This record gives sequence, C-alpha cells and structure tokens, in this order.
Amino acid sequence: MTDNTASVLRQVDQDLEKSLERLFALLRIPSVSAQPRHAADCRNAAEWLRTEMEALGFDASVRETPGHPMVVGHDRAAGSGPHVLFYGHYDVQPTDPLALWKSDPFDPKITTEADGRKIIVARGASDDKGQLLTFIEACRAWKAVHGALPLKISILIEGEEESGGANLMPFLKANAEELKADVALICDTGMPDRRTPAITTGLRGLVGEEVVIECATHDLHSGMFGNAARNPVELLCKALGSVRDDLGRVLLPGFYDNIVVPSDAVRAQWRAIFPDDSLTLKPVGLSKAAGEAGFTAIEQIWARPSYEINGISGGYEGDGFKTVLPARAMAKVSFRLVPGQDPIAIREAFRAHVRAVLPEDAKVSFTEHGASSGFAVPEDGPFLSTALAALGEEWGVKAVSIGCGGSIPVVAEVKEALDMDSLLVGFAQDDDRIHSPNEQYGVESFHKGIRSWVRILDAFTTR
Amino acid sequence: MTDNTASVLRQVDQDLEKSLERLFALLRIPSVSAQPRHAADCRNAAEWLRTEMEALGFDASVRETPGHPMVVGHDRAAGSGPHVLFYGHYDVQPTDPLALWKSDPFDPKITTEADGRKIIVARGASDDKGQLLTFIEACRAWKAVHGALPLKISILIEGEEESGGANLMPFLKANAEELKADVALICDTGMPDRRTPAITTGLRGLVGEEVVIECATHDLHSGMFGNAARNPVELLCKALGSVRDDLGRVLLPGFYDNIVVPSDAVRAQWRAIFPDDSLTLKPVGLSKAAGEAGFTAIEQIWARPSYEINGISGGYEGDGFKTVLPARAMAKVSFRLVPGQDPIAIREAFRAHVRAVLPEDAKVSFTEHGASSGFAVPEDGPFLSTALAALGEEWGVKAVSIGCGGSIPVVAEVKEALDMDSLLVGFAQDDDRIHSPNEQYGVESFHKGIRSWVRILDAFTTR
Repeated sequence: MTDNTASVLRQVDQDLEKSLERLFALLRIPSVSAQPRHAADCRNAAEWLRTEMEALGFDASVRETPGHPMVVGHDRAAGSGPHVLFYGHYDVQPTDPLALWKSDPFDPKITTEADGRKIIVARGASDDKGQLLTFIEACRAWKAVHGALPLKISILIEGEEESGGANLMPFLKANAEELKADVALICDTGMPDRRTPAITTGLRGLVGEEVVIECATHDLHSGMFGNAARNPVELLCKALGSVRDDLGRVLLPGFYDNIVVPSDAVRAQWRAIFPDDSLTLKPVGLSKAAGEAGFTAIEQIWARPSYEINGISGGYEGDGFKTVLPARAMAKVSFRLVPGQDPIAIREAFRAHVRAVLPEDAKVSFTEHGASSGFAVPEDGPFLSTALAALGEEWGVKAVSIGCGGSIPVVAEVKEALDMDSLLVGFAQDDDRIHSPNEQYGVESFHKGIRSWVRILDAFTTR
Repeated sequence: MTDNTASVLRQVDQDLEKSLERLFALLRIPSVSAQPRHAADCRNAAEWLRTEMEALGFDASVRETPGHPMVVGHDRAAGSGPHVLFYGHYDVQPTDPLALWKSDPFDPKITTEADGRKIIVARGASDDKGQLLTFIEACRAWKAVHGALPLKISILIEGEEESGGANLMPFLKANAEELKADVALICDTGMPDRRTPAITTGLRGLVGEEVVIECATHDLHSGMFGNAARNPVELLCKALGSVRDDLGRVLLPGFYDNIVVPSDAVRAQWRAIFPDDSLTLKPVGLSKAAGEAGFTAIEQIWARPSYEINGISGGYEGDGFKTVLPARAMAKVSFRLVPGQDPIAIREAFRAHVRAVLPEDAKVSFTEHGASSGFAVPEDGPFLSTALAALGEEWGVKAVSIGCGGSIPVVAEVKEALDMDSLLVGFAQDDDRIHSPNEQYGVESFHKGIRSWVRILDAFTTR
C-alpha cells in the first residue's frame, strides 16, 4: 500500500455517513425493470447516477436503448496505469410478496442484528445498488484526497440486468470502441462467509422460459365439465414435475453432455470452506441437498446445472374455494447452466419435453426470458492475483477463488463484444436475501467494499 | 291444467318486466360468500330476500349461522295438498379473472345473442339467483291472481353453497321440525339442450382440498440456491401431476371401489341426447374427452368421478421474469364423487399420495373445503312423474331424467337431516358460463322457468 492509499482510506472512513446517505437516495428510487409501471423510476435511477458521476468529474451521459437506458461515464485523465471498465446495474427485482417485508422496500433503514452487525434493509441494498456504489464511492474518495483518479476509469451501469438484459449485448457491440479497456471490474457477487474476501471465477448461465398452456376457450365449472375437459394446470404439473428424476437429475436428452466437472483439487478447496452442507442449507431452514446425488450442496450450486420452477399460476388462487376448471395455466421456469452446455439446445429440449406430454386439445406457447452460457473466468488472467492480494490486505484473510451459482451474463458478453476478461469482486453475504423480501446489505460490506476498491485501484497502478 | 293455472300463467307473462327488475336488484348485490370482504353483501342479499318474501305474505326471517345467514319463509295457509320446501342459494362465485368480463359482473345487462336469444349477463344470473327467483316469482303470480298459494310452501335460501356450505347441515338438523315437508324442490340444475326440460336424478359429490407445501424459510435467489434447495412448486407438480395416468384414470388406491356403473339402458338414453362427444366438448373449444377411456364425455361428467386442479400458485406470477426459488406453493384440488365412493377415504388417499412424494425438507399442510357423497334421487319418488309431466306441458317436449356432474350437497343433507327426497328442476343451459366470466341466464330460462313452477305447483295440488 502506498501513502497515497492510506490517506484515501482515511477519507473513506470519515465520509461513510455521507456515502450511506447517497446509497439511501438511490435505494429510494423503485427501479424495478421487469414492471412497465416502473419505467420512469428506472430512468430516474439512471439520471441520479449520471448526476453523481458528473459531480465526480466523469464525462457522463444517459444513453438510450430500446428498453431502460444505460449510464456511461469516463475519466481517462490519468497518465499511466491500465484502463478499467466498471460494470453494475441500477435496476432491482420486483418486491412481491410485499406482505412479507417488515418495512417499505423503498424506504431504506439501518437495523442492528442479534449479533450486533448493522445492516441496510431495502430492495437493491445488496443487488446491486449497494455493491455498485462501493466502486463509485471509492472513486469519490480518490478524487477528494488527490483531485484525480489513480488510473483511467470508465463506468457502465445498465438497467435491465434483472429482466433479461436483452439490450446490453447490442449496446456493447455498438459502442465497443468507446467501452474497450484493459479489464472489466464487476461488483455483483459475494463472499463465501463473513471474513473471507473472494473473487468469483466461475458463473452459471441462464435459460429463462415462460410456458402457457391453454385448453378450453374459457374457465369451466368443474362439476359441469370435470373429467371430460382437459385441465391445463394438470398438464403443466405433468410436464414440469417430470423434468427431474427423484435423484435430482434432469432428464432432458443431452442435458449433461460436455459439462466439465470441477477438478478434485478445486472440489477439495471448496470443501475446506464448506466442510458440510449444513453451512449452505441450514441458514435457509433446509437439511438435505436437493440436486444430483454425489455432489455437495455447494458443488450443486457452483458447478452443476439446475432446473427451477420460478413461478406458477392458474385457476382460482384467492380465499376459500372455487370449483373452476381453468382454461389456462402459466409457469416461469429457468435452467442455470455451467460451461459446456448450450443454452439454445437446452431451451429446445425443454420445449420438446413439454410438447410431448400435451394431448391434442392443449395449446402451448413459450416466451423466452434470456439465454446465456455458463462462464469460467481464466484463473491466470492479468489482474487476478493483484486483486486477490489487495483484498487480502484489506480483510486480513487470504482471498480465495470461488464459484457462483448465479448468472451474470455481462461477463460472457464483455468477452464476446469487447474481447475483455472480467474480474468479479463482490462483498455480498449469503443471508443478504437478494431477490427476496427484506433484502439487506451489511454496513461492513459497504464500508470495507469501498476500502477494498481503493486498494485494488492502487494495486493496479503499481503492478 | 286447471283454469286457475291459465290465469296465473297470463299474470307471469304480463309481469315479466317487473320480475326481471327484481332479479336485477338481487344481481346487483355482490354476495360472494368465499371472500370475507363481501360478508356485508351476503347479509344484504339475505335481507333483500326476506323483504321480498314478507311482501308476498310469507312469515320470513333472516337466521344467523356461524357464517353467512340463512333466509327462511313459510306460507302454510293452504288447506289441502302437499307441503313443499323450496331450496336455493343467494351466494355467488368470485368474479376473477375480472379482466375477462365484458361488463361489470354486478351491473346486470340484457344482451341479444347472434341467434336472437336474449340473455341476462351477471355473476349469479344463472347460479343461483336467476334460478331461485323463478320459484319466488311463480309464488308471486299465484298470490297476485288468487290471493293465496295453491299448497303449503316453505322456502330456505342459504348463503354458503359456493364456499363449502359447512353450516347448512347443522341448521337443517337444528330446525328439522320447522323445515320438514313432503318433498324438497331445488332449482340449481340445467337442461340437456335448449328445448328439452329435465329433472336431475343423479348428482356427484365433492371433496375439496387445499394443499400448501413449504420448503425454505423464505424465497431464495435461484442462482444462489438453485439445485441444492428444495423447490416446493416442483414437489407440488410431481404430486399433482401423478394423480391420474395418461388414460385419465385416477391412481389413488381404492378410488373406483364400489362405484355403480350406469345400466346399459341408462347409457343408451343419454347417448340418444348426446350422440357424440362433440355436443359436450365443442362449445368450449375441445374435441377429445379427457377422462377414463371407454366412457363418453357425458358419462364421464354424469356418472364417473373426476380429479381436478382448481387453482395453483407459487413464486413469481407477474410481468417479466424473476429468478426466485419460491419457499411456498399452494394448490386447490377437488374430486367429484359418484354414489359408492367414500369422501373421507378419498381425502385420506389423496393426502397420502401427496405426502409420499415429499422429501424430508418439505412440509405440507392440508385444508378441507367440503366433503359430500354422490347421490342418486330415487326414480320412483312420489312427485317425479307428476313434475316431469308438468314440465313437458310447458315446454312442449317430453321431459327427461338426467345426471349432473356438479355437486349439490343439500340433496344428501336434506335426506339425512329431514328424511325427505328432493326434486331437482332447473332451467340453466350449458353455455350459461356459471363460475366463469360473463355468466349468463336466458330470459327464456327465467320466463319459462317461472311458468314451469306455476304448472308444477298446480299439478301437485291435483295429483
């Protein structure tokens, strides 16, 4: 660490309250990208970020797409060192079921946990507003102390990460010359526990599908037609209930073809962090890994593909009982993919599986909700060891390479469109409840996250 | 037909506009018994009926139950003839999906069909407000012409037929002496086509169940936990998708034990009315009977038990996509039963089937929504042939005995509590869309329904 950095870290500590106030301002904007009624909120979040970046001296702009806008900013004044592109997303997941939130998801609060940890509670606190601001606040501290950044920085914040992200790839390609840098930095991942900093080097891809099955022309009375009229909910259950066998293995033809199983060495490293499945499952009230037999829970999440039903709906869902025979049933289904799997082939195999159970009176329609491959970040990339070392200094614990069960399509897209590798540095915790009611982000994650970026930027300038 | 009756029928014709106005007033009351927010509306409907009955000279009262109230009225002034108990229900089904209604379900309208038929469109138009008023308006016409009813009449209107009807049986038992008559008349069934009047002599029972499966303590991110955490929606699909085989046969042990198959003679009579399945299925956009192979569609509905999923819900059901791994899934399921089946045994067999597919991390809970046996009305009951003859006179077509796929638990309950047989006379049409959006009732059903009751009451006095 240079003297330059020590003064910036002190600035981060002194400015923490104001950093939190800025985060709260961003969290108050309900930028739910999946819901059309929040389109103006998404734009407001983009404008808020542009204004903040401009205040820091970035050449910043809100950039139109066919969907929600992007925010792009550049400060390339530094005369030496590499050029980094930081990526984050300002959009957040929907909040339902709203009734399960203990407070308004868009009225952020700091509360204290039983163990004394202070946490920020709000939709987007962790995913990804809190995380993306760690980087921007690190830039702010550099500017406040030195009047300049330590290296060339570009920032790209998108607004459709939680809703398919269809416009990112075209945007990257159309603006490749502007956005090209030496490495991409992404803050949208987590730590394996509260003390061990980590860089994520494996990511799962995602195939999202919406299935609608329709039979009769309208809802029927189950007494007047029950038994003789096709029930689309039953057909949907038959189709979706037969994708995996009782041992957790997906039965779609070719599903596991070409998958690379992690080496024994990698599996051993993971087992050192997660000696048994209870560390993974007990915090959410479960005891037994539900995926393929023969893999630990963390292996099932980090290195094996999944099949999940994300939502299902049909017929009468309200109070009491209604003897309706529904005309329509809907489900949202996704597969998390690992490197080697072909998203398009898996989408087609799933559709064929559904079609195969349908009799002549059932119509099915499918809607795509994204398709991305699993991705492995090269272990020997140019910045990985430098960043791991900087993280270790900040947290006082050796930083590790881990997998991630989630999908961050930007990694593959940045590789394809800009021919750049990404470094996934994040500070989220497993109990952050991202995508769930009462999403949270530790004040420590936010504070030490900012400090971590200060150290990483410094390390990159001197490597 | 006596001269007495001819003048009453003329009165029915002259008063039709006002009869429709009264029906509209009742249809405007949103008496949805399954939804607690409509409790006051249910009471308003009961009070409206009490007021109307009192105006006709009935000794009428609204009677409390632990749920929605009953309405009871008596006019036992007639010096001769049998004593009849009329039963109907003032409560209606919920209106969702509301978006599919072409007009406000509680703002009744008369519209004209392509074939020139005039229909009344509103929730409850057919089931059961329109039907029950045919009887009350018949009483009104008798009173208007002759100042008295032709025989002793008691009326019982309940308010929980669409929501389990748990309070009817205790009420019948507690008031058996007051309610006992020579025969029960029930107007809650239909005609096999537009021209053929019918009395329903077979009814299916119903077992209603709500199933909730819960796994993790809260909704999870499908990336962070997908594959390793149990998905309750998948388990629910596995359980509900495996109740019937691909030939439409329910696989629960003992499900078909002791069922009486209709005689060849009865099946031949039904085939004469429904020479092929298209008459049953084509009007709702279907082509192939979905139940057990070897039975026609109408046999599957009238004489075979059914399994239906009436509603299902879990995870994210809104716009776009949410990569949630739900903590909870819910379904509403029902079985329609025929005589010989034991509702309690079938409920237990279903619960055992669901429990058998659940791994250790899944919790299940069940909620009962009614249990009633299938029922056959005696073909040789004392009033059947008289009523069939009166119906035939009104419609100019020989009246027939038919089955019904629906459940009208009151028939079995009246038999048990009051030791009375029931006569199920109704004027609904298959395209009345009961329980569906845009429920309707033909003006002809209403008008000729009133006239039919005038003739039946007359025929009972002189038989």
